[in-house]
Amino acid sequence: MTVKIGLVGTGTVGGGCLEILANHAEDFRVDYGVDIQLAGVCSRKPDKAREYGVEHLFTTDYRDLVNNPDIDVIIELIGGTGIAVDVIKESMAAGKHVVTANKAVMATRGEEMFALCRKHGVQLFFGASVGGGIPIIGPMRHSLIANKVSKIMGIVNGTTNFMLTRMNADGLSYEAALKEAQDLGYAEADPTADVDGFDAAAKIAILASLAFHTEVRMDDVYTEGIRHLAPFDFALAHDMGYAVKLVAHANLVDDGVFVRVHPTMLPLDHQMASVNGVFNAIYVVGDSVGQTMFFGEGAGAGPAASAVMGDVVELARRLGMGIPCIAGSPVKRDLSIVDMDELETKYYIRFQCADVPGSLAACAAEFAKAGVSVKSVSGSTKRGDVDLVFVTHTAKEADIRTAIKGCLALDGMVIGGFPVVIRVEE
Amino acid sequence: MTVKIGLVGTGTVGGGCLEILANHAEDFRVDYGVDIQLAGVCSRKPDKAREYGVEHLFTTDYRDLVNNPDIDVIIELIGGTGIAVDVIKESMAAGKHVVTANKAVMATRGEEMFALCRKHGVQLFFGASVGGGIPIIGPMRHSLIANKVSKIMGIVNGTTNFMLTRMNADGLSYEAALKEAQDLGYAEADPTADVDGFDAAAKIAILASLAFHTEVRMDDVYTEGIRHLAPFDFALAHDMGYAVKLVAHANLVDDGVFVRVHPTMLPLDHQMASVNGVFNAIYVVGDSVGQTMFFGEGAGAGPAASAVMGDVVELARRLGMGIPCIAGSPVKRDLSIVDMDELETKYYIRFQCADVPGSLAACAAEFAKAGVSVKSVSGSTKRGDVDLVFVTHTAKEADIRTAIKGCLALDGMVIGGFPVVIRVEE
Repeated sequence: MTVKIGLVGTGTVGGGCLEILANHAEDFRVDYGVDIQLAGVCSRKPDKAREYGVEHLFTTDYRDLVNNPDIDVIIELIGGTGIAVDVIKESMAAGKHVVTANKAVMATRGEEMFALCRKHGVQLFFGASVGGGIPIIGPMRHSLIANKVSKIMGIVNGTTNFMLTRMNADGLSYEAALKEAQDLGYAEADPTADVDGFDAAAKIAILASLAFHTEVRMDDVYTEGIRHLAPFDFALAHDMGYAVKLVAHANLVDDGVFVRVHPTMLPLDHQMASVNGVFNAIYVVGDSVGQTMFFGEGAGAGPAASAVMGDVVELARRLGMGIPCIAGSPVKRDLSIVDMDELETKYYIRFQCADVPGSLAACAAEFAKAGVSVKSVSGSTKRGDVDLVFVTHTAKEADIRTAIKGCLALDGMVIGGFPVVIRVEE
Repeated sequence: MTVKIGLVGTGTVGGGCLEILANHAEDFRVDYGVDIQLAGVCSRKPDKAREYGVEHLFTTDYRDLVNNPDIDVIIELIGGTGIAVDVIKESMAAGKHVVTANKAVMATRGEEMFALCRKHGVQLFFGASVGGGIPIIGPMRHSLIANKVSKIMGIVNGTTNFMLTRMNADGLSYEAALKEAQDLGYAEADPTADVDGFDAAAKIAILASLAFHTEVRMDDVYTEGIRHLAPFDFALAHDMGYAVKLVAHANLVDDGVFVRVHPTMLPLDHQMASVNGVFNAIYVVGDSVGQTMFFGEGAGAGPAASAVMGDVVELARRLGMGIPCIAGSPVKRDLSIVDMDELETKYYIRFQCADVPGSLAACAAEFAKAGVSVKSVSGSTKRGDVDLVFVTHTAKEADIRTAIKGCLALDGMVIGGFPVVIRVEE
């Protein structure tokens, strides 16, 4: 089976795809009986096309690829929800299958894209949209389908995991960790998407949609980032027996689905607690399979291109077997998104207080008033003012907010503004 | 799409499959559009069929299922290479697709089974043959196919991993750990297949065949078990910065393929070092994806049935789409199996010696004679006689054997017989 592909976008991942094709086109013929041929490359700049000796296939207009009747599959690697959407839609309308790494499109307009798949009888593969090279979309759509999945936890943003690892292991401040991540090319000049949790939110929306067969969009995800964390929090967490990670959660509950991204304390002996540096991991609990975890590199040219080209080869194999459209939508149910106020878990809450008598007692009274059962509270003056740390028993998010609001209203006591909140996973 | 299945074997895994079907048949209809109907159950005893209210479908003769024209898929869960082979072969000959958890058949007669698939135009799924419920066969056959896989390491036997965890964490002897595993139902009365590494050997043969696209049989796997390990070895390893695990290895090298199962020291910060208890993990390195790891429960009713029924639902979906035989054989290349003598790695070797002067020097001289560069050697009398522990720099297996032979021939020095050998993975 000969399958001609058009590559749109030659950044990091696009370059990785050209690399794989240069190295392994012959292996794909031998091992899988598919002849993957590059028939067009679109980008703003011809550098990569030149580097891989395919400048004769180069164009700056993606429509040249969409309108090329020889091309069977378009690989969309522009990213974002701007022109990438046009590329995907026009490719499908032209009867071409699409492979994309675009988490933004899948997490905001996934259902619309699947509807277009069905309309035009084409397939849409998006294995690279979550977890880089880690096979997670595939197992969720295939190997694990006999399970009712009840819970997903993902360390799905390598940039923040690198920063948290440095803050934890080497006591770096948030600012220093961010600077280092930027210097190493892990973080963008504007790091918002990573450090505020939006990248992770898009990814958990995609995973939750697949796992629970319902539409979950990025906007449905309650999202907190890591800007407020200090090395001090990691030290305290460690003493309590926990690691602090930015975790994307999806939980199936009676009322619907919880989807949330926030700093989370994980027990030190949890398999995910030792996932460090830029590595990613996705932990999935199913009713039959029990606990599973998928670990690997969540970003970078090689891993992401591994997922993209894996999809391309798989698609080519299926085309070779004359398989009709099977992408379809994972959405068969219409579950509601449960409000974050309903969450029940344990909490670590650190206020910065003025060093005045009675602040601990006054804050503790606010927790009591809100009906939150406190497991421990301790004050530390290590860092100048008082760090007042509450650790609660299982409590309701709404009650925690009431307690925090009460504390913030105490006259002249809490001086650091909104406290550091880390939810505790058992 | 309605797909009728016949279940042969109602032990632990078969019971798990009946459980999943009882709980999730409706979910499969809603989420995947497939109507999986049980049309026959074969076993020696009707207990499970009675338990799940399907005794009207019960038979003790598998031929009743093979000859039932209504049945589309046979699930073979007898195990072993006896009657299970007849069930698989006769099912295929009758035009039925087969889903099996049978590692023994896949690791010894896999190619023969694939040839029958092609001959009869049916499919063969075997996702449960390695790693229980951990999705590993699927990713190897799909998500990771754009990679050249160079290395696999697997903790693929839960029984021995449980025992090693107890020996390491709680200082249990091999005998005590085995007794506990037997009492808990993790180990058989005859534990040979687990503790001598044969179960792991079958599994790595299957993974290596998939990864390297070549035929690797269980007999090709160099196999050592864990009978000779003592808690003392774990303590020493820990001091050196390593955990001791029974690891199944597959490596692609210039000359071919290394496949081996033996106790292995893994650096404590390696993601696999913290895989404890009955959990399994498979670590895969590909040229694009880099390091990945798949973690989960490697055995038990739920996990294994998750893999079996995942295959069944996947197969049903494909049949619903009119997809022809695509199982085929992963074998497209004819790589040679490299002799273990050629292995180059670091070694931990512990001799039990009589407490006589000069034993350390005499043994060290044998290592020197064999051309093995020793990193450290230390003697301990903690356990009575002298434990003489050599740690080598990278050396060739053949030279190590020469050195050991030399030591064993020293008059009256080594009294404990063949030493404990643990290969060290960096």
